[in-house]
Amino acid sequence: MKLKRTLSLLLLSGCLGTALAQTNNQAKVESLLKKMTLEEKVGQMAQITLDVIGKGKGRFESDEPFGLDEKELQRVLVKYHVGSVLNTSNNRARTPQVWYNIISKIQNVAMKQTPNKIPVIYGVDEIHGATYTVGATMFPQQIGQAATFNRSLVKTSASITAYETRASSIPWNFAPLLDLGADPRFPRQWESFGEDPYLIKELGVAAVKGYEGEDGRVAHPEKVASSIKHFLGYQVSVSGKDRTPAFISDQALREYHLPPFKAAIDAGAKTIMINSGIINGVPVHANYHILTELLKEELNFKGLVVTDWGDIENLYKRDRIAKDDKEAIMIAINAGIDMSMIAYNYETFCDNLIALVKEGKVKESRIDDAVRRILWVKYELNLFEKPTTNPKDYPKFGSKEFEQAAYQTAAESITLLKNTDQILPLAKGTKILVTGPNANSMRTLNGAWTYSWQGEKVEEFAAKYNTILEALQHKAGKENVSFLPGVSYKMDGKYYDEYADKMEETIAAAKNADVIVLCLGENSYTESPGNMNDLYLSDLQTELAQRLAATDKKVILVLNEGRPRVISKFEKKMNAIVQTYLPGNFGGDALADVLYGEVNPSGKLPYTYPQFPNALFTYYHKPSESKGTTEGVYNYDSDYNPQYVFGHGLSYTTFKYDQLKLSSNTLKKGESLTITVNVSNTGKVDGKESVLLFTSDLVATLITPDVKRLRGFEKIELKAGETKTVTFKINAEDIGFINTENKLVTEAGEFTLQIADQKLNFNYIP
Amino acid sequence: MKLKRTLSLLLLSGCLGTALAQTNNQAKVESLLKKMTLEEKVGQMAQITLDVIGKGKGRFESDEPFGLDEKELQRVLVKYHVGSVLNTSNNRARTPQVWYNIISKIQNVAMKQTPNKIPVIYGVDEIHGATYTVGATMFPQQIGQAATFNRSLVKTSASITAYETRASSIPWNFAPLLDLGADPRFPRQWESFGEDPYLIKELGVAAVKGYEGEDGRVAHPEKVASSIKHFLGYQVSVSGKDRTPAFISDQALREYHLPPFKAAIDAGAKTIMINSGIINGVPVHANYHILTELLKEELNFKGLVVTDWGDIENLYKRDRIAKDDKEAIMIAINAGIDMSMIAYNYETFCDNLIALVKEGKVKESRIDDAVRRILWVKYELNLFEKPTTNPKDYPKFGSKEFEQAAYQTAAESITLLKNTDQILPLAKGTKILVTGPNANSMRTLNGAWTYSWQGEKVEEFAAKYNTILEALQHKAGKENVSFLPGVSYKMDGKYYDEYADKMEETIAAAKNADVIVLCLGENSYTESPGNMNDLYLSDLQTELAQRLAATDKKVILVLNEGRPRVISKFEKKMNAIVQTYLPGNFGGDALADVLYGEVNPSGKLPYTYPQFPNALFTYYHKPSESKGTTEGVYNYDSDYNPQYVFGHGLSYTTFKYDQLKLSSNTLKKGESLTITVNVSNTGKVDGKESVLLFTSDLVATLITPDVKRLRGFEKIELKAGETKTVTFKINAEDIGFINTENKLVTEAGEFTLQIADQKLNFNYIP
Repeated sequence: MKLKRTLSLLLLSGCLGTALAQTNNQAKVESLLKKMTLEEKVGQMAQITLDVIGKGKGRFESDEPFGLDEKELQRVLVKYHVGSVLNTSNNRARTPQVWYNIISKIQNVAMKQTPNKIPVIYGVDEIHGATYTVGATMFPQQIGQAATFNRSLVKTSASITAYETRASSIPWNFAPLLDLGADPRFPRQWESFGEDPYLIKELGVAAVKGYEGEDGRVAHPEKVASSIKHFLGYQVSVSGKDRTPAFISDQALREYHLPPFKAAIDAGAKTIMINSGIINGVPVHANYHILTELLKEELNFKGLVVTDWGDIENLYKRDRIAKDDKEAIMIAINAGIDMSMIAYNYETFCDNLIALVKEGKVKESRIDDAVRRILWVKYELNLFEKPTTNPKDYPKFGSKEFEQAAYQTAAESITLLKNTDQILPLAKGTKILVTGPNANSMRTLNGAWTYSWQGEKVEEFAAKYNTILEALQHKAGKENVSFLPGVSYKMDGKYYDEYADKMEETIAAAKNADVIVLCLGENSYTESPGNMNDLYLSDLQTELAQRLAATDKKVILVLNEGRPRVISKFEKKMNAIVQTYLPGNFGGDALADVLYGEVNPSGKLPYTYPQFPNALFTYYHKPSESKGTTEGVYNYDSDYNPQYVFGHGLSYTTFKYDQLKLSSNTLKKGESLTITVNVSNTGKVDGKESVLLFTSDLVATLITPDVKRLRGFEKIELKAGETKTVTFKINAEDIGFINTENKLVTEAGEFTLQIADQKLNFNYIP
Repeated sequence: MKLKRTLSLLLLSGCLGTALAQTNNQAKVESLLKKMTLEEKVGQMAQITLDVIGKGKGRFESDEPFGLDEKELQRVLVKYHVGSVLNTSNNRARTPQVWYNIISKIQNVAMKQTPNKIPVIYGVDEIHGATYTVGATMFPQQIGQAATFNRSLVKTSASITAYETRASSIPWNFAPLLDLGADPRFPRQWESFGEDPYLIKELGVAAVKGYEGEDGRVAHPEKVASSIKHFLGYQVSVSGKDRTPAFISDQALREYHLPPFKAAIDAGAKTIMINSGIINGVPVHANYHILTELLKEELNFKGLVVTDWGDIENLYKRDRIAKDDKEAIMIAINAGIDMSMIAYNYETFCDNLIALVKEGKVKESRIDDAVRRILWVKYELNLFEKPTTNPKDYPKFGSKEFEQAAYQTAAESITLLKNTDQILPLAKGTKILVTGPNANSMRTLNGAWTYSWQGEKVEEFAAKYNTILEALQHKAGKENVSFLPGVSYKMDGKYYDEYADKMEETIAAAKNADVIVLCLGENSYTESPGNMNDLYLSDLQTELAQRLAATDKKVILVLNEGRPRVISKFEKKMNAIVQTYLPGNFGGDALADVLYGEVNPSGKLPYTYPQFPNALFTYYHKPSESKGTTEGVYNYDSDYNPQYVFGHGLSYTTFKYDQLKLSSNTLKKGESLTITVNVSNTGKVDGKESVLLFTSDLVATLITPDVKRLRGFEKIELKAGETKTVTFKINAEDIGFINTENKLVTEAGEFTLQIADQKLNFNYIP
């Protein structure tokens, strides 16, 4: 009792502290705002990329080693009052000390030479560790984190990333990504937590709390302001390509895309980044309904709304809904944008926005709203008092403790998709041939947003970590491991450029091995350069797989890919298949431990793995997509044929589910239903299992209901022979749907509840 | 002057006649409706398939030869008052005489034994000729008709189909299809007029006038009631598969999908069939907004609204928005459905609908509205006075004259996609090897909806027409033509089942030929059985193409396919490529004439031909889909890469465009702009050319404008050396767009006008 009360007091004081700090900060914001000129306010809304103030020729590049251009810095900060800087220079990672030097100098000018001494807010994309910092701890990308189905690991990953970002003097992180990763063609599916709204919501909240702290006090020098992105509906373009048009109904927007953002905002996320795309014909950066009515009014978001890269300019240059830059600025700011990630042409932005206010085309109250939000985040981050953080205060940066956390996350993400005749785990003395373009690459283990935008510099910065090949050599002894690439990526080409690399020798070498470990997948990419035209795994890799399978040696296929490339042309010939996603710098080690049984795999697919390039589904499809045969002369059956379903993932042990029980066979409004199920480890080794709870609404009004939806998950650990009872609670809101009036409703009627092979029906009574 | 006045008088009297007839018919409808019981009214709303009243075991099949089950016929017509029958029996074509016998018997019972002597309305899908009639004239499917860009040919095709449908005693045709054929994955793209709204609208109106007559007087015994379909937005499902969910914004629905339907309704289309799919979560058959507010109120459609096959039942059994059949019926009828294409379970429909009216859940006024529309169409068709038409009154059925029209349409549809070094046309003595699964098949030339639903019985009924092989043998002499299949379709399997068929012999035979005519494509399919998973042309056909190309013989690829299957794995190795679409029974002859230069090809692609399975576009995409490189460290270019663009099509001659002129450089509201351009045949042979006029709106409010849009087309014929001036007129409405308020607007500003390589800008001033 005593412990509990102390805890309550602590929690209470924590909350009060936060509330007080917020009130104080709001007062400070108002006081400062009153002193600012229009020019200063507009400057706060401008964000430039670091190369603009780097020494060197032109704005698009800087000299190496990097140095600030003092004159341009003066112009940017003192003349134009620019309030924010982002990104690294020359698109490459810097040491914590270099970051500290750069940002200290910037803040020095901002806080000594500007009228109101307002610190700059520096932001970077640190999406799986501190992307642009040399020596930072690289975790699995979000798609792998999602496969762990482990909230705690996701929170720890964000927490360590926050620490290492602050160790680089940077207080603002453009993460987590909360997009619905529902399209395997999209070049950023791997940056998402997968296809399921509930999974994204739960892990998204864990990530926000990891970045910002449980109490959201980002003044803490080990926490950063997060930027949830990309609001809203970014990853479901019709073409599957980046920054191209999507059609999303209001109903679907609220049913599938909004819940993770709403939950993250309720959890205190300080900033939000906007979708660069076009929904229903309208660029989202011009959408007043989404930016103001939905985000700021309905969701009551009080933080900072930042554009994505150059997206105001895009309204004019790309989307042609403005006749010039000035009109584009007017449209975006009036729609609700607070800060423009201009990147380069800050004068155009500032001069035009000042003119627009003077002409009455943008109200000064709109400017004030934007600047209030920006200043509030700066106060929340305590930047006025502590504009930089010093690497020397961050002794755990790149530590073993952090590396262990990254390893653990990678280990729990790895997903065993197939294991014919229990060929895995391998015995230690097995002679293995390691091959494939992903076998000996740190770049492919990490993916993009690692030391550079597209990840092309990873080998330079990550040499000390183990590739799959190196990890297997360490694990099994070099004498048991041979290597030939078979196929290699052209490391200076497009992500999909590759060539046959000793393929004949590779096929010939198979005869000397007991088992082939074939490492296929993709090279690194993100955003538009990662667009793709053909979801099949490449022709060359397919050829390598088919020829190796034809040698009659056992083949273990290791997938290392940002999105589920189609493997159906040879999947049946593979003896085992292991999905690693983009596991980060410790992915090679984690994989080796899985292959040799030191880690029992427990990842589950956070998406539907397609079998064909034009057969793309999500597990929560509509009944019409998986309908059976029709009676009579005309048959209208459908064609639902994924390679692997959402949630698929094998273990080296077996789990048995039984005793599914409900506290009642009716759920009443305002009450909750308690669900229990027994899970037993019926195999011979210890293992972890993600227990997934689905419900199905059997009949709904007008909106055809999804076949099923994830409503709960818990990851448990079971020793061999052990049984645990897992408990879930659901209430009416958890099983509702968005109706044709765009309201969340739960209708009276029958529902089916499903956990693994256990099913029960219950009735909801409003 | 005299001629003109006579013409005016004729037109005037025609209109007056129509108006009078309509008034009379409306009066007759009201008079009849008053006499009808609720049971009779509900029966009118029911439509069954012929097998239900055929002798034989069960409702799903009938004995052969077909005979009516007199007892069941009594039950259906006299007890249940069913008002409509559709389809053939046992899914096979019947002779005109058999049709006459069947329908005469049905009408005999309906008109002698029912209280109000109301004739049955018989409907069939006759989409490229009289599908279900033995000996009827089969035209190219709509996608080929679209490639002609020739309104007159399309109208003639519909007119002849109407004649031959009436020759089969059938007065109602479920055609034309006015869906936006914007998705090459969709299994019915070939039933559409392609991807462009304007092209569909123009050809759709031509088809409606062909079916119903210029004046819409379908009482004429050579005309039928058309059924424009599928209202609305059918072919753009997210998955590309039939009858699965689509997301379409209201703006896009009106911008791209609605105009052809609106124009066809304004042109007098008597009936309309509803989209079997789901838009924005809601099954269209349950959508009051689309069926009543948009169709009946806003578009003022006065005709009959019929479901697609079993689609009311689908609300319950497939889409789960109703808890049982009864609720499904309530939802659909209240949404605005007039007639249910029940197919089998008519008792369920009738009994439930009667109960619903008695319970007040469906208003009798809604029933009256439905029945008024049904009776009106029956009166319009003059069925009360002439319930059947007799084949003996149709001497032109299957005549040479009709065949010539079908041949002509096929000839103008064939599209020359590639012709390296003018390898085509062939000289007469050339030794050719004809090969490929489409080389010797009438089934593949016709596609589905030919003698049966899926087209699997075509060889049985079309033996007298020429396959590609037979036509080439006739044209070039058997001594010059050899044949080996290489690959064949499994004619009793799924449409995509195929096998290597003497492939080695085929490759070996290439050495004896001068040129290879390689006929690839698809076997016949439609609707759900035509769903596909991989847009690449099949592996076996690709292998055949690649191996033939490797023989170093010249290869002429003849495509015979319902949708543009991806050929990029071997396209570069083909010396010439000819697209035939689904050209019908005279497609082989037309192709032979094209290959040997007796017909100069003039078809143009009515869709964008994709180069990769996950790179699908329409030509009227948004600027973001074909954007160039971005300045700076982050590049956001896009990836627009069709194999062939919309409108692509070569000729054996060359055309030069010049002297593009506008009557003014400004277009004012209420005025029109006259555009002229000179087109010259600069080659050595006569030819036809479709002249296409595009406009681009350079800046638009909020809705990012399409890169360009088709606004006019004219097909002209030019002798070698001849020049013609082509004239277009456009006004403000022609170049407007649907804005975010879902209104058609034309905004002040600059537009670009483009015809071939000629471009000019003009300004619109409201």
